[in-house]
Amino acid sequence: MSVLGQLRAELGDLVDTSPEALENARADKSGHRSAEAPLAVVHAEAVEHVQAVMRIASATGTPVVTRGAGTGLAGAANAGGGEIALSVRRMTRILEVSPDDLLAVVEPGILNADLNAQLLTHGLWWAPDPASKAISTVGGNIATGAGGLLCAKYGVVRDAVLGLDVVLADGRLIRMGHRSVKGVTGLDLTSLMIGSEGTLGVIVGATLKLRRIVPGDVCTVAATFRTVRDAAVASSAVTAAGIQPAIMELMDPHSLAAAHALLALPAPTPGSAQLTIQTDGPAAAVEADAIAAVLTGSGGTVAVTHDREEGERLLAIRRAMHPAMETLGTALIEDVSVPRSQLAAMFDEIARVEREHGVVIPVVAHAGDGNLHPNFIFEGPEVPASIWEAADDLFRAAIRLGGTLTGEHGIGVLKRRWLADELGDDQWRLQRDIARVFDPQGILNPGKVFEA
Amino acid sequence: MSVLGQLRAELGDLVDTSPEALENARADKSGHRSAEAPLAVVHAEAVEHVQAVMRIASATGTPVVTRGAGTGLAGAANAGGGEIALSVRRMTRILEVSPDDLLAVVEPGILNADLNAQLLTHGLWWAPDPASKAISTVGGNIATGAGGLLCAKYGVVRDAVLGLDVVLADGRLIRMGHRSVKGVTGLDLTSLMIGSEGTLGVIVGATLKLRRIVPGDVCTVAATFRTVRDAAVASSAVTAAGIQPAIMELMDPHSLAAAHALLALPAPTPGSAQLTIQTDGPAAAVEADAIAAVLTGSGGTVAVTHDREEGERLLAIRRAMHPAMETLGTALIEDVSVPRSQLAAMFDEIARVEREHGVVIPVVAHAGDGNLHPNFIFEGPEVPASIWEAADDLFRAAIRLGGTLTGEHGIGVLKRRWLADELGDDQWRLQRDIARVFDPQGILNPGKVFEA
Repeated sequence: MSVLGQLRAELGDLVDTSPEALENARADKSGHRSAEAPLAVVHAEAVEHVQAVMRIASATGTPVVTRGAGTGLAGAANAGGGEIALSVRRMTRILEVSPDDLLAVVEPGILNADLNAQLLTHGLWWAPDPASKAISTVGGNIATGAGGLLCAKYGVVRDAVLGLDVVLADGRLIRMGHRSVKGVTGLDLTSLMIGSEGTLGVIVGATLKLRRIVPGDVCTVAATFRTVRDAAVASSAVTAAGIQPAIMELMDPHSLAAAHALLALPAPTPGSAQLTIQTDGPAAAVEADAIAAVLTGSGGTVAVTHDREEGERLLAIRRAMHPAMETLGTALIEDVSVPRSQLAAMFDEIARVEREHGVVIPVVAHAGDGNLHPNFIFEGPEVPASIWEAADDLFRAAIRLGGTLTGEHGIGVLKRRWLADELGDDQWRLQRDIARVFDPQGILNPGKVFEA
Repeated sequence: MSVLGQLRAELGDLVDTSPEALENARADKSGHRSAEAPLAVVHAEAVEHVQAVMRIASATGTPVVTRGAGTGLAGAANAGGGEIALSVRRMTRILEVSPDDLLAVVEPGILNADLNAQLLTHGLWWAPDPASKAISTVGGNIATGAGGLLCAKYGVVRDAVLGLDVVLADGRLIRMGHRSVKGVTGLDLTSLMIGSEGTLGVIVGATLKLRRIVPGDVCTVAATFRTVRDAAVASSAVTAAGIQPAIMELMDPHSLAAAHALLALPAPTPGSAQLTIQTDGPAAAVEADAIAAVLTGSGGTVAVTHDREEGERLLAIRRAMHPAMETLGTALIEDVSVPRSQLAAMFDEIARVEREHGVVIPVVAHAGDGNLHPNFIFEGPEVPASIWEAADDLFRAAIRLGGTLTGEHGIGVLKRRWLADELGDDQWRLQRDIARVFDPQGILNPGKVFEA
């Protein structure tokens, strides 16, 4: 029987070959799309469905691309010709919330925001906060090692997952990790799964480490600077002053101007850049005032508010970044990350790349943790070679500064050709060989991360 | 040429075959010792020395046991007949401290306490604080995934390492991880190395994530309870009240009595147990008072001090635990960890094991994170079979309660026979196969963790 026939015989209506479903499964939010549509989309609703798909896939040597909500930015979840798109988006149950143990056990398809809305009723939250949190799944956040705005203060996904249930390539289910705060039994496979982008197994359950809702106020500081370099130096001064903001976002002149235009606000002074900073917790007001003093001393024009709603209005400019980019053309959103002390140097490199390649690169940065999103803008659906050359130059600059290709979006298809540049050939081979232990047939998301 | 001859030809005086060195390399602090002395101890002073040892070892198929200060409690660093003991204890340099990036780059042999003494001059610290911190190395802390007293508030080793330099089995050097706060390039091999107990490679450098020294006071609360169960329930009440102490230690009646005897203090009321809790940071005093109220409400007799020295006097009873155990006989120090909500249930299980096996099991627990150290006391150097039977019963109880064999000491030789019970056979084989990718010849710490 054909692969499709076997899937249908075992999974019935969960197997979807409608043109719309197949078309959706070809792309994520990166703009990249696979060359051909996949064989089928399977909408798994339970662990057993995932196991059935993997048993059929391993018996027939059929590639499987696991998908959540398809909001990735590296093409890692794009399914192509001859592949099964395995969607876990319908697995949305919260199986347990334990306020005493500060943990929740969830299925992978629940949206980050939906989970946090439920946790709020217990006075709890799961800290990872990718900008996509309203539309991205917890499983996808884990599979990509997603970041967000709050990471410098509240950690990354790796800090917020205690254990995972994983279906292996051949359909077996294993449980990794712990429910306890501590646990060092054998190798830390939970961490290995985080950010593995569907190459090691299918995440079908997650034991999440929760936090209690932070008591106290949220205060917001917005400051404009004459140049983006001044803003970057000022953000470093905040860190150097020993204050830990919850959020510290930097918008360069291009992105600031585009966001103002989108929101119909008066145009900012040409060349000016903005820092938007939030503090939280019992010391929020004291910290906001201290930050305002540092920023003023660094040449900023500073506004402070202790009002949550007014703060949200100030942050709205930052949140308008992605829609603002869409008004300019197609955006290739990059994701380099550097040590915080190198933020100004990285902006210098971006200015150099703009000059030397004749491109404009609007940038927004999570300045608190050194993660920058340079946006390469172009016309049409395909990234032109000239843009990839500029991006290549920028990636190499980030690595030279002690940084990395990707702070929070992952490798997928879009950055696989630079992976060995950062890891070195020896480590690249070691990583690929580890992936082969999980997936000896090479059916898990082939062609992603480790080039086919 | 013999292995020893090759080592001497390349490494000269760094190769130590003195009876004392060979004898020392046979044991750690667990009390367990290898059956025979190793071939030699090599005192590596630089990365190149480690690489030379691994090249000779892989060319000749000679097993290598990496050692730091030998303070482990699972026998993981014990070197035996035909093996090379590779000591990195002399590699103690701090290569970089970056207050701006909150990171340090260090060699593996530096003692945790020596590093923290240096960091203090920068207003910084590395949070992992195993009880052995004065005598254990940073490399050993990482290789075992060491825990400590502060973990519930300040995290475990996994949360405090950004990157590692690792010499592979064949002598190649690779650099894993990042200097940036965020980074998701490929698989997270840094996390995989943490707690791998010398089975994957030799850690020769570490990029550590630092914290700023916590400002404010340290307050201490000591409370005695009628029974150990009352104390466990009270500690859960503190967590449930949403207060996060820096330290929350629980001593059962046996350990409390032994510590009092050692310190020549008046004997505690028979059967009584003690909680010793510290709060820190700007809200330390407020939190200490809130904790005191919770403990009083839970039936405790409570003393609070806002004085750091008086607090240290109260903690001295807890710190006397290990020497106190040594006065009772030989101690097999176990290390189970359970979800915090199961702490009282785990004490019930320990009481059952005591009754059913006719043994006395003094226990100290890191109550804030659910990690218990039951001490099995016996005469002579060898663990009697009857003690292992009682320990086996206790391990299985911890796993039943959703816990783990080992919260912070690791598997080594002493717990390898229970590893598959916790992981399941499928995961056990997967972990072992991953180790084989790093070490195809099986020369890295063979017979440890994954049974030979």
